[in-house]
Amino acid sequence: MKCSVRFKPDDCSVSMDKGTPIIEAANVAGVDINSSCGGKGTCKKCKVIVEGSTEISTKSQLEHNLLDKGYRLACQTYVTGDVVVFVPEEARLRTHQILASHRPHGLESLSPLTMSAQLRMEPPDLMDNLGDLERLARAIGSEHDEVHIPIEVLRELPNKLREGGWKVGVISTGQEIGRSIISLTPGKAVCNYGAALDVGTTTVVLSLVDLSNGKTLVTASDYNKQTKAGDDVISRISYAEEGGLETLKDLIIQTVNHLLFEARASAGKLIGQYDITALSVAGNTTMMHLFLGLDPKHIRYDPYVAVTNLPPIVKARDLNIGINPEAPVYFVPGRASFVGGDITADIVASGLHNKEELALLIDVGTNGEVVLGGSEFLVACSTSAGPAFEGGEVASGMRAMSGAIERLSINNRLEVKYSTIGEKPALGICGSGLIDLVAQMFLRRLIDKKGRIQESGSKRVRRTDEGRTFLLTSSAGKEIVISDSDLANIIRTKAAMFAGCSVLLKSLDKSFLDLDRVYIAGGFGNHIDVENAITIGLLPDIARDRFQFIGNAALAGAVLTLLSEEKRKEARRIYEDMTYLELTTSQTFFDEFSSASFLPHTDISKFPTVRGKLASEIGRK
Amino acid sequence: MKCSVRFKPDDCSVSMDKGTPIIEAANVAGVDINSSCGGKGTCKKCKVIVEGSTEISTKSQLEHNLLDKGYRLACQTYVTGDVVVFVPEEARLRTHQILASHRPHGLESLSPLTMSAQLRMEPPDLMDNLGDLERLARAIGSEHDEVHIPIEVLRELPNKLREGGWKVGVISTGQEIGRSIISLTPGKAVCNYGAALDVGTTTVVLSLVDLSNGKTLVTASDYNKQTKAGDDVISRISYAEEGGLETLKDLIIQTVNHLLFEARASAGKLIGQYDITALSVAGNTTMMHLFLGLDPKHIRYDPYVAVTNLPPIVKARDLNIGINPEAPVYFVPGRASFVGGDITADIVASGLHNKEELALLIDVGTNGEVVLGGSEFLVACSTSAGPAFEGGEVASGMRAMSGAIERLSINNRLEVKYSTIGEKPALGICGSGLIDLVAQMFLRRLIDKKGRIQESGSKRVRRTDEGRTFLLTSSAGKEIVISDSDLANIIRTKAAMFAGCSVLLKSLDKSFLDLDRVYIAGGFGNHIDVENAITIGLLPDIARDRFQFIGNAALAGAVLTLLSEEKRKEARRIYEDMTYLELTTSQTFFDEFSSASFLPHTDISKFPTVRGKLASEIGRK
Repeated sequence: MKCSVRFKPDDCSVSMDKGTPIIEAANVAGVDINSSCGGKGTCKKCKVIVEGSTEISTKSQLEHNLLDKGYRLACQTYVTGDVVVFVPEEARLRTHQILASHRPHGLESLSPLTMSAQLRMEPPDLMDNLGDLERLARAIGSEHDEVHIPIEVLRELPNKLREGGWKVGVISTGQEIGRSIISLTPGKAVCNYGAALDVGTTTVVLSLVDLSNGKTLVTASDYNKQTKAGDDVISRISYAEEGGLETLKDLIIQTVNHLLFEARASAGKLIGQYDITALSVAGNTTMMHLFLGLDPKHIRYDPYVAVTNLPPIVKARDLNIGINPEAPVYFVPGRASFVGGDITADIVASGLHNKEELALLIDVGTNGEVVLGGSEFLVACSTSAGPAFEGGEVASGMRAMSGAIERLSINNRLEVKYSTIGEKPALGICGSGLIDLVAQMFLRRLIDKKGRIQESGSKRVRRTDEGRTFLLTSSAGKEIVISDSDLANIIRTKAAMFAGCSVLLKSLDKSFLDLDRVYIAGGFGNHIDVENAITIGLLPDIARDRFQFIGNAALAGAVLTLLSEEKRKEARRIYEDMTYLELTTSQTFFDEFSSASFLPHTDISKFPTVRGKLASEIGRK
Repeated sequence: MKCSVRFKPDDCSVSMDKGTPIIEAANVAGVDINSSCGGKGTCKKCKVIVEGSTEISTKSQLEHNLLDKGYRLACQTYVTGDVVVFVPEEARLRTHQILASHRPHGLESLSPLTMSAQLRMEPPDLMDNLGDLERLARAIGSEHDEVHIPIEVLRELPNKLREGGWKVGVISTGQEIGRSIISLTPGKAVCNYGAALDVGTTTVVLSLVDLSNGKTLVTASDYNKQTKAGDDVISRISYAEEGGLETLKDLIIQTVNHLLFEARASAGKLIGQYDITALSVAGNTTMMHLFLGLDPKHIRYDPYVAVTNLPPIVKARDLNIGINPEAPVYFVPGRASFVGGDITADIVASGLHNKEELALLIDVGTNGEVVLGGSEFLVACSTSAGPAFEGGEVASGMRAMSGAIERLSINNRLEVKYSTIGEKPALGICGSGLIDLVAQMFLRRLIDKKGRIQESGSKRVRRTDEGRTFLLTSSAGKEIVISDSDLANIIRTKAAMFAGCSVLLKSLDKSFLDLDRVYIAGGFGNHIDVENAITIGLLPDIARDRFQFIGNAALAGAVLTLLSEEKRKEARRIYEDMTYLELTTSQTFFDEFSSASFLPHTDISKFPTVRGKLASEIGRK
């Protein structure tokens, strides 16, 4: 069942599954809520006022007087029906600039892909008998040659002008992509909407945005219908190579059209298909190719060349997208075949390219892209980390959905405590849960530094033909276990990401200690427990206040580029200026990868706080 | 039966009806041949060498030694089968700059709408892994943003580049309309062709042009299939108003596609539909509207406003024209609803806008457009002359086709001598014949200065209920006569054109004697007998060497704008700078029209040589 979650005073809404925590709905909606404990219900910074049908976690420890006033912890409250959530100013995440820039007050001014205006013209007479189009151009005040008008719109021009008494609402693109007229309405200027898309390999998220004020009205997400053709980009490319390109193109367009329909239906006002006049798309390079119907074959083979990393603006009609057929479709440019437009959008949203700080940006996903830099330079790589943190390559792994174990701890009596999304019976374990699990097993000496399960005398440990397993829990007759091979996959994934970070730093003679900031992007980034991530050596062991979770930054970047010419120029500059490091041929990467294929690392001195924890664990025993 | 007429050394050919004079075929083909006697066979300047099946007029008085060598007078030789015509240098019309500029040597350099080139690229490797499109843009040497590529072409890019071993033939538009890629061919640069169109209300003429050298390969003409919906622009507009716009659009596109097919078939080399990558169109404003599917309704009513006089460049695909779907379709801009792109094309072809001379340009057609000016200024009007010179509004009138009386004289014994096109039995009388007829009747006092037929004692003069008639001839049982009302229509037509010229001159305080040059454009212009035209007061009584026949200048202008950015800029400047005089509300026009509604004019002192002829006629009697 889907529940509508409307946020005030932002006035945007999302449609979420029943059982979703409010903080997750806020993340999807691009509403910034403080959650410095990572959603554990302990920091109590995420207090919001809720009206409507919800359930509260037993862990919620708010004072009664606050509960009576309607206050709830956003991380411990789950929607069970349609709700309205008021987010007080003190709950907002002011230090997280990225989330703030979801909204127009993060932009100096609006210069969206398309703009709506009213034009008034003098009616023609014998002394002034300019043609209708020339009259329109004169009213726009532009050199005629710089106004483009599609033939379909030109055919409607004479009637629209006369019907409105020589006043007409015009939606047109901005100057930087050539002023082109999208639509005409007799009389008045009309409301003008745009859409921003994060096209993930697994999940597609769409925001419907009011281009007059930059406000996101509604955000909707769905699985990428292409998943039936394989889970990762390589299997999608294979599918396309076997004649499935057209099918994949149709599937992603179907996904997007479905989301557009859903978003329009739940926007709370009547928005027609033709009222959406612009689309900004952020996605990895393969997704962008499939979206445009471009053959992604050569992405896969050395030297990994894209058809384009800087796609031209196309019209919605050319892609059969269910918005105004003349609407420009803009793609955030990517840097390389494995550092795509989603990463550029992450950077734009983080703002790291505009700051003098030295920052690292980690997109926790299958490709595990990493960016290092600041206003002076940018360097990026893709670590091909693998899907372990997204539920792949781990037998009991699953995506972060209802019933997934998302938090886990093991005490020194080796008792496992966990919580699931939606407080449902456990079905499996998602990325944040796996990080917790590996860290806790390591600290309790249930696994060694190579990730091998140890004979600890615990009944949870079993021996099988393929090695040992560790039983987390039995739930609804199903056992949730982790095996040696699962652990090897997780370690390989975390090692690749850490090695990527190391290579980037080494290439500039820097170390982790030089970092002023580490941005963690990706839908599930917000749910990571930083301490546990450091314990397993996924994140570096540096001052905790340097980490900043920026959520779905690809979507935020798509919204920003939808709304701002300056942000589109920034994306273009990132494309031009960022250096791409190819890791597949990098000996340094393989060395760093080998060194990082331990818990937390071959060189424990790089992780002093982990060493301290291990020492205190030993001391406790 | 159609005959192929190929001209050497121009190496272009036209397909003409059997019986067409070679000089007319040359005119259609844009081959310049001197014909200062106006095709009477007397000046003998049009000597050409002919191979193939022809018939020679009995009037041809070439010496036998020349005839034996294959020389023929182009005006007195009619094709009866496929022929090859060699045009010697001395037969060329060097003083007629317009016809010379049909061909590329009239252009300083070629800068056609689209250009073909080969690009060579370095294959990508890990150190240089630009995307395919970015690699192409780098090879073009252009800023990426300035290269537009349609999504359909982009989809073919990776295979085309690799198939050609990183060499590719590219056809793209020039810089001035935004560099846009039209087509890609693996390996080598390909031949590139364009088409130029003169879209007349009655006749459509198409030239197929090799864009690599500017040569016209073949010219084909056909009736505008729209004529079934009415003969003139007003009846077409009415038809469109009654819901027939889509039909009219389809009919003109059918006409053009048929001509394209015919031209490709007779081009003498294999030219595919996709090899034609550009189209330049000159037509009156109504024709341009119908071509684009624009509603022409408002052209018809005060204040006579067009949807546009400066249409945007559209793609062939948007109009279903049978050439490369990505080909740009350029329209020569018009100045007003009744001074269209055909007149701008006339001016471009004449070159009058680049000369310091004061020149008048008369387009002898239904609309009777007149332009006055030079490099300093341009002023134009439309006289709505009527179709009398195109076979309309005259009972025995017909278009200039086989069997039409095109030359006529009446001697002082009132004997009528005439010749017909193709030396066929007379079927009617066309424009040039009507001018001769009225002049000769006037000189022989068969009509008075108001055009009324006089009782002369001749048996040719008869009285009917509607007034008197004059019998020209009986042919194949059919009488060809001219009536008082026919004559009134002819005088109204010539008066309107002369009045238009007078108004333009008066508006600038000039007289006909100030004119350095009078250009006569229009398909039938070349056949006018200047003396007779002056006698009836259609043309002014000035030095005969100032008259210059420029044939189908609209087609020539379309070819020039197809081939030259400079000519397109000139057309644009003409659009911007030319003043349009609206005559429907001009008292001066009505005064001048009344004064000109006599033979030759109320004020005979304006026509001293006609006064002289009349005096000598009287003396002879």
